[in-house]
Amino acid sequence: MADLQNGGSPAMLKPFFDEESTVTYCVGMLMDAGLVFLSDTRTNAGVDQINTFRKMSVFEQPGERILVLLSAGNLAITQAVVSLLHERQAKEGESLLNAPNMFEAVRHVGDCLREVHRRDAASLRAFGIDFNASFLLGGQITGEAPRLFNLYAAGNFVEASIDTPYFQVGESKYGKPILDRIFTWGSPLQEAAQCALISMDSTLKSNLSVGMPLDLMCYPRDSFSGERCLRIGSDDPYFKSLHEAWGARIKQAFAGLPGLNWEQCASL
Amino acid sequence: MADLQNGGSPAMLKPFFDEESTVTYCVGMLMDAGLVFLSDTRTNAGVDQINTFRKMSVFEQPGERILVLLSAGNLAITQAVVSLLHERQAKEGESLLNAPNMFEAVRHVGDCLREVHRRDAASLRAFGIDFNASFLLGGQITGEAPRLFNLYAAGNFVEASIDTPYFQVGESKYGKPILDRIFTWGSPLQEAAQCALISMDSTLKSNLSVGMPLDLMCYPRDSFSGERCLRIGSDDPYFKSLHEAWGARIKQAFAGLPGLNWEQCASL
Repeated sequence: MADLQNGGSPAMLKPFFDEESTVTYCVGMLMDAGLVFLSDTRTNAGVDQINTFRKMSVFEQPGERILVLLSAGNLAITQAVVSLLHERQAKEGESLLNAPNMFEAVRHVGDCLREVHRRDAASLRAFGIDFNASFLLGGQITGEAPRLFNLYAAGNFVEASIDTPYFQVGESKYGKPILDRIFTWGSPLQEAAQCALISMDSTLKSNLSVGMPLDLMCYPRDSFSGERCLRIGSDDPYFKSLHEAWGARIKQAFAGLPGLNWEQCASL
Repeated sequence: MADLQNGGSPAMLKPFFDEESTVTYCVGMLMDAGLVFLSDTRTNAGVDQINTFRKMSVFEQPGERILVLLSAGNLAITQAVVSLLHERQAKEGESLLNAPNMFEAVRHVGDCLREVHRRDAASLRAFGIDFNASFLLGGQITGEAPRLFNLYAAGNFVEASIDTPYFQVGESKYGKPILDRIFTWGSPLQEAAQCALISMDSTLKSNLSVGMPLDLMCYPRDSFSGERCLRIGSDDPYFKSLHEAWGARIKQAFAGLPGLNWEQCASL
């Protein structure tokens, strides 16, 4: 509630020249058992333009590789990058589908992002619009273990590891505490997916700019298959039951906490 | 983990001219039963200058009024405002201790903040430093119910209500979901204090710029007394037990959630 001064969201104060923005929530998780990806689909360009776009793109050669790309930021930029990835695949044969490894794949996404930057950044600047885009790219290519990268607007990137096994983009803070408490490199896939959904549920509850439906992908290591991929709508019975169970269980967890005892603590 | 690009914190990249900053975490809660205030004490001016300052000031006439001021932002600004409040009280007799009501009291804080702005803002701007300060002022003056205000850097303010019963300043997002799930206007004081401590615990876990010890004030309505005021150190046995119990109970709550069933959900 610290941002009442700005009407809840900076975007809400700009009635004109509003670019569609995906300042929303995506999380990618890397673990021994595989990968989990979750994104919302909300975009907005001001208070009266709330739209739904897919932020998860899947590039798959069944049995050989799968790559999942999540995006956040200015929708025109992130869509241009995804279109360019498809166009280069069709025209030049350079593609996420034939990159020799994940490192080359994420470099390729960075190259496409830099091409969009060269084309669009100056024009955006003329309208006072930042070149705001970030991506998560994760997946597995035969011969490698699953890998996960966080790609910045400048086209450079960092890689997840056993010590830093997840990345978030967008409205990341609301949903970070539950990830920090529950998720580890050793988590089973299903538990990681539940943790991602709870993290999303906390974000949905505290921030209006993030919205249903959700796109969820669970990738079991060495399966080279994207079949565990779901779109979760607002009336999805599983997400509803998870939402309600978590709300109730948090209240229970809270109710059983040790009571505050004034006498035990030193006075100021 | 979205800010690895910036080394975890923008402040960490600026080795010189770093102003001591209290971008940390404070929460103020208004409810039927009274008021709760919680602040951390961490300030920093770059990665190697981590200090502890009190961010909670109490102005009290026992039996007649109590006002609690929490601050976030540039420490030089917020300290100047608090010093000015004390100086005006000594010199001019205009004071939080004789304001006729909470509305006039928060206006008085706003006036002091604006005086600091007139004196310092241009000099700060010359060093590229924003005039960054915000305050929570809450309390009760005889003749009124308890009230709580969120004061912005411009000296204007909003008031908490039954619909918006809490304000946060500083690193607010990590600790917001638990407040949204647990705290209401009807919460008992002790429960609200526990909720504030859990909210702080989540923030401490996810953000290094927030740090112990904590200052906690619980104000029972119509008590006109600040005696329920604690400093909670990092080895405080109650906070330790709360931290451990919450960590364990969150894991329990999570472990009992309904399992993810791929078959029940529609395919993408």
